[in-house]
Amino acid sequence: MTDITRRKLMTTGGALAVTAALPASATASPDGHKTPKVHHMVYFWLANPESQSDRDKLIAGLKTLEGIPQVQKLFVGVPASTMVRDVVDNSFHVSELMMFNNTEDQDAYQTHPLHLKFVEECSGLWEKVVVHDSLMV
Amino acid sequence: MTDITRRKLMTTGGALAVTAALPASATASPDGHKTPKVHHMVYFWLANPESQSDRDKLIAGLKTLEGIPQVQKLFVGVPASTMVRDVVDNSFHVSELMMFNNTEDQDAYQTHPLHLKFVEECSGLWEKVVVHDSLMV
Repeated sequence: MTDITRRKLMTTGGALAVTAALPASATASPDGHKTPKVHHMVYFWLANPESQSDRDKLIAGLKTLEGIPQVQKLFVGVPASTMVRDVVDNSFHVSELMMFNNTEDQDAYQTHPLHLKFVEECSGLWEKVVVHDSLMV
Repeated sequence: MTDITRRKLMTTGGALAVTAALPASATASPDGHKTPKVHHMVYFWLANPESQSDRDKLIAGLKTLEGIPQVQKLFVGVPASTMVRDVVDNSFHVSELMMFNNTEDQDAYQTHPLHLKFVEECSGLWEKVVVHDSLMV
């Protein structure tokens, strides 16, 4: 099975009415606002966690990614001081959430020059990165 | 200020009014839309990953949490079929993103009756859960 076939199967496998109406893009709410369907969530652990300068540089670098046309929404965060609970892992140093209309746009973003520039300039700042990609249901 | 009053202000107020009323909470964009500052991101691994019924029950349970007043936005997802890369961990089965105006609201949500009911009815469905809480910067 090719990647494209598999993606098509996985995308349509949810078999929701929404998917049938708008198979490859964002959904529209009653007021006409689009809701991007794919969330790209990234957690960074800095190589030098004590460096405020490194953290700021990474945050600034991430914010440049808003210039990539496929990125519908971009949020950059740091650990919140919510209640300490066993299931909460706030050991990361910087988080990023991007919303895309579909998986193809997310894939295209990966090779966009602005993203490649960010990786070139900032990848030395982190020692670990974890990505979760979700399709809204 | 009561929750209801505050929400009404946030819903009907212009950008300046919202900012003035809520200095340490949500921020408002120039067009008056508020941006919740705290993202609560949760990843679930099902005890029975093959059970479509369990997955659907968890998704339905998560969607009931939208009824909690502190929850400004709720998104529920499943792994997206983005490109396979070393840093991508799409082993989870269901994801949830909630947006809150501030950390106090997130803490209050934890003990809201609807959340406790969800935990009681659905916690048997998952074998692992990981939470990341971020403050937008």
